[in-house]
Amino acid sequence: MTRPDTPTLDKVAGPADLRALGDAQLKRLSDELRAELISAVSETGGHLGSSLGVVELTVAIHAIFNTPMDKLIWDVGHQCYPHKILTGRRDRIRTLRQKDGLSGFTKRDESEYDPFGAAHSSTSISAALGFTLGRDMGQPTGDAIAVIGDGAISAGMAYEALNNAGAAGRRMFVILNDNEMSIAPPVGAMSSYLSGLYANEPLARMRSLAEGVEAALPQPMREGARRARQLVTGGMAGQGTLFEELGFDYIGPIDGHDLGQLLPVLRAARARATRPTLIHVCTVKGKGYAPAESAACKYHGVSKFDPITGTQAKSAPGAPSYTAVFGQALTEAAARDPRIVAVTAAMPGGTGLDKMAGRFPARVHDVGIAEQHAVTFAAGMAASGLRPFAAIYSTFLQRGYDQVVHDVALQGLPVRFAIDRAGLVGADGATHAGAYDLAFLCNLPGFTVMAAGDEAELMHMVATAAEFDVGPIAFRYPRGAGEGVALPERGEVLEIGKGRVLAEGTDLAILSLGGHLGECRRAAAALEGDGISVTLADARFAKPLDRELLGRLARDHRALITVEQGVQGGFGAMVLHDLSASGLLDRGGLSVRTLTLPDHVIHQASPGAMYADAGLTADSIAATARAILRPATASVVNLTSVI
Amino acid sequence: MTRPDTPTLDKVAGPADLRALGDAQLKRLSDELRAELISAVSETGGHLGSSLGVVELTVAIHAIFNTPMDKLIWDVGHQCYPHKILTGRRDRIRTLRQKDGLSGFTKRDESEYDPFGAAHSSTSISAALGFTLGRDMGQPTGDAIAVIGDGAISAGMAYEALNNAGAAGRRMFVILNDNEMSIAPPVGAMSSYLSGLYANEPLARMRSLAEGVEAALPQPMREGARRARQLVTGGMAGQGTLFEELGFDYIGPIDGHDLGQLLPVLRAARARATRPTLIHVCTVKGKGYAPAESAACKYHGVSKFDPITGTQAKSAPGAPSYTAVFGQALTEAAARDPRIVAVTAAMPGGTGLDKMAGRFPARVHDVGIAEQHAVTFAAGMAASGLRPFAAIYSTFLQRGYDQVVHDVALQGLPVRFAIDRAGLVGADGATHAGAYDLAFLCNLPGFTVMAAGDEAELMHMVATAAEFDVGPIAFRYPRGAGEGVALPERGEVLEIGKGRVLAEGTDLAILSLGGHLGECRRAAAALEGDGISVTLADARFAKPLDRELLGRLARDHRALITVEQGVQGGFGAMVLHDLSASGLLDRGGLSVRTLTLPDHVIHQASPGAMYADAGLTADSIAATARAILRPATASVVNLTSVI
Repeated sequence: MTRPDTPTLDKVAGPADLRALGDAQLKRLSDELRAELISAVSETGGHLGSSLGVVELTVAIHAIFNTPMDKLIWDVGHQCYPHKILTGRRDRIRTLRQKDGLSGFTKRDESEYDPFGAAHSSTSISAALGFTLGRDMGQPTGDAIAVIGDGAISAGMAYEALNNAGAAGRRMFVILNDNEMSIAPPVGAMSSYLSGLYANEPLARMRSLAEGVEAALPQPMREGARRARQLVTGGMAGQGTLFEELGFDYIGPIDGHDLGQLLPVLRAARARATRPTLIHVCTVKGKGYAPAESAACKYHGVSKFDPITGTQAKSAPGAPSYTAVFGQALTEAAARDPRIVAVTAAMPGGTGLDKMAGRFPARVHDVGIAEQHAVTFAAGMAASGLRPFAAIYSTFLQRGYDQVVHDVALQGLPVRFAIDRAGLVGADGATHAGAYDLAFLCNLPGFTVMAAGDEAELMHMVATAAEFDVGPIAFRYPRGAGEGVALPERGEVLEIGKGRVLAEGTDLAILSLGGHLGECRRAAAALEGDGISVTLADARFAKPLDRELLGRLARDHRALITVEQGVQGGFGAMVLHDLSASGLLDRGGLSVRTLTLPDHVIHQASPGAMYADAGLTADSIAATARAILRPATASVVNLTSVI
Repeated sequence: MTRPDTPTLDKVAGPADLRALGDAQLKRLSDELRAELISAVSETGGHLGSSLGVVELTVAIHAIFNTPMDKLIWDVGHQCYPHKILTGRRDRIRTLRQKDGLSGFTKRDESEYDPFGAAHSSTSISAALGFTLGRDMGQPTGDAIAVIGDGAISAGMAYEALNNAGAAGRRMFVILNDNEMSIAPPVGAMSSYLSGLYANEPLARMRSLAEGVEAALPQPMREGARRARQLVTGGMAGQGTLFEELGFDYIGPIDGHDLGQLLPVLRAARARATRPTLIHVCTVKGKGYAPAESAACKYHGVSKFDPITGTQAKSAPGAPSYTAVFGQALTEAAARDPRIVAVTAAMPGGTGLDKMAGRFPARVHDVGIAEQHAVTFAAGMAASGLRPFAAIYSTFLQRGYDQVVHDVALQGLPVRFAIDRAGLVGADGATHAGAYDLAFLCNLPGFTVMAAGDEAELMHMVATAAEFDVGPIAFRYPRGAGEGVALPERGEVLEIGKGRVLAEGTDLAILSLGGHLGECRRAAAALEGDGISVTLADARFAKPLDRELLGRLARDHRALITVEQGVQGGFGAMVLHDLSASGLLDRGGLSVRTLTLPDHVIHQASPGAMYADAGLTADSIAATARAILRPATASVVNLTSVI
């Protein structure tokens, strides 16, 4: 594949080089940067659309601000590829999201130009305020600049930060990157409000530019700004944008692809701002690459693709994804039960709820990036008699944890949590790992927690959750393709708290919970090959535990290994608590090992490579078993030889 | 103590009786209700100020709306005492916050008039939208009415809900109870904004009343409303309050103690509203009781008091509270290290940070009810080189869980978490239990987690956290008075991951983490009296585990009991994971029991009574030990007798 010609970009080793370029050269640089970006992502896959939308903005910020002394904080961080190219990481840009390669997000240990890492949304303004306090207390740091999208700024956390920063009144910059689209088209009133502002252009342009900044603008813009403000606000004091009401000086909206606007506005803002300043920049997701512009949603995160035609590489046809199986099963359940409704936090496609939304649009509620609200909204629906499914990725459910505890668990409300992306997820890395949900759900009173061992099990769990109406229930399943098992016509309602035994043996019991069932099967097969007789069981339920099964496994085997795609403190911990409390460990002769994710961060790679890194594979399960059982076997041999 | 005369109130068995009363009678009823409330809370203690502020509002809502078919949802719920008196619970109102008595918050299983329980703030709008969906999908429920304070509405979660409800456009009611004070005086830009609105009265009164509602008002109010709207907005379309920008029809502000305003406005709103409607009601916390009005902050939650003088019962002088010891120790640490800063989420008094704020006001940041922002703001400060202490109650830290994982743990940033109210907390009940923090922190990579066995230990942990600058560190401590131990001049820096042995024995090891150390001491003393030789150790660190100590305890004793003030999946689970992984449980002969909070909700009572209910006392520790050790002891006896 030929690489684009990039003579200007080739001379830029870092942001300092940008500051020597004239405005026209910066324009050329932007074009080359865009070409380089498309070329790189066509090889690696990644968040192309977001990055294409901020090419000029990235160039302008680094040209005007004194990074890395000034702290540039990209919200979410998935739009940071041009930033990485400009900040000394161009030589590694084609390793994006690969094992040992560049992260797809900003990351503190990757570069001094990434002062605060991200991946979950809406954290940047809080972090920027933290750096601002550090600066004002004498730490060696300059201005903080948060760049945040219109979807991310609608989350409660961003609002809390705007509210606090506005009241604090300290000089800092928030650049609102308004592309009228989060991952799916954004929803909610905030979004309409932003669209309204945009629609008023050019009348509203520079509508309420702060006085000091305004004075520093070139004459034509300055006049436009004054006139616009007067016209729109009628000259009344105290009336302004929502951001001004929160205490920010507001500049904008301006065209985020026009360096002729970006450079003077940022220059003026940097020179004159004394207070928290919000700069409203409008961009087009996918800008400058027709296939991405015309279907920006699909290009949010892409596979490798042909840079000329835009055709994305397809995975080989195989087992359906867990997500697709969930979407289909829930849609069918919803067709049978009109009380079923579903909630997503800005992820209708990612969660598979788009399927149900296609058939029952009024029963799928996309609340935007608002997991806290999503959970309690679902709790309210449950209290009214509906049967809500809250479909939230494991990693994002963390945002609604207090609501899960306080509004759902303590009230015993039957909210169904469909937890996709449980376990390690691959290219998105550690920040997106679904590592903690078992640990934070299993200790909540009255919660029922399931995990699907394959995609047919997932169908059963959807059916079970739909019927179970006496308390909260959750089911988790991995990212990606299923095991390829035969799917039933319709899921069966499982008996609550009952596991299943897949193979009976006498030496070792492997008790699997969830998506590693296939690895456990492979481990069992290998061990049987060694002459070790293995019982393989699928717990299905992390809570309530199948205590009868557990007792049987403990009494009838010399060793018991639990396997889960999650950290310590989850399923294995519940097994240990139970076994120790019931005295089954007192007598000795039973070796228990709980295989979990390890207590360190597992970095991006393929999911399989991540699990290998985590020491959680068929091989490691088998090795654990051999290590436990070998000494005993050895002593039996010795005994025999003595006899 | 004489009870007030309440002839009108005496005739009210429930809200239906209110609806037969004329406006003048409702006024009399309000006065009697206030007198009854003061009398009751003087006997029980509780959230007096908040409840006094909503007496008229409570009467008006129940008189106008059709509760319990209409769903009245009190945010936080600590202002619900008048509501409880009017909804069939007057005969139990003097059992408030006591064992087996009425909850101090709304609670679903207490009354059909409590459709959605609360205690943490800012959940009501989400729940109300859930009920609204239920209504619109045919569930047997009427209108939803959320009543939320000006502090609570500034939390991100409430903003998410307003944003979503505004966009949904469905008829529902949010009553903003604006008393310009959350628990401490509220902070943040939202609060200034609300104050600004209030300051414009009477000009702004009824400023932007929705058309339909406006038409239904009595003539003088209607004209005032029209004029005000015109004057303030200059007649421009699309300009209005922040709430209108989020998609709500806005009515107000009105005087929340004037039934002459409340009743017609609520009547009009109920009759005419077709969309989400926000009614802005201004009230005075503590209204009608001079001691509370003049110091509303102190009367947020009160002890029993003399209803004539307002003098609150004092607890007997004794050991200082953990909170006070923390506040003092942190202030002294801050005096030594200018990099130390502190963050609180609307709890400067409750956390003890008011002490540091008195001496170093610029270094204590009260961000309002905004735990998500608080955590990431602290992470930003840590990244800039400061040494932030985030002082957040265990139960409220749940709100910032994702930020703890994503912004602090995964980045390894040295934020110090001072976690007050760990364990069971007494009268505030299950919703405020600090039950989960050990379980949700111990499995985060790179986290250091401590728990204080007494108040001197807390001083050491403050000193340790101040010095520890290589990663996140947390320390937890109980609510209430310390053990009364001698306090050092200055805390010592502890060795990370090292516990301490307090008594050496041979039969049983008790390994305590945190606030139950005193109970463990008592258990050990009782067991020694039975002839059981006990090693008593204080783990100090839940993470990293003191593996050397743990190995010693496991190898040298017949039984090991861990004790913690938290649920399963926390410290005990980490001990079990470690012991099983290292093979120390394989050989038998060691009985391990992990004593934790049980897997069910523990309801309000004194902390001691709650722990008794939880089965976590000196007696239950000793009983557990005897049950494990007796068989072995018995067999020794038998053996002896045979010989």
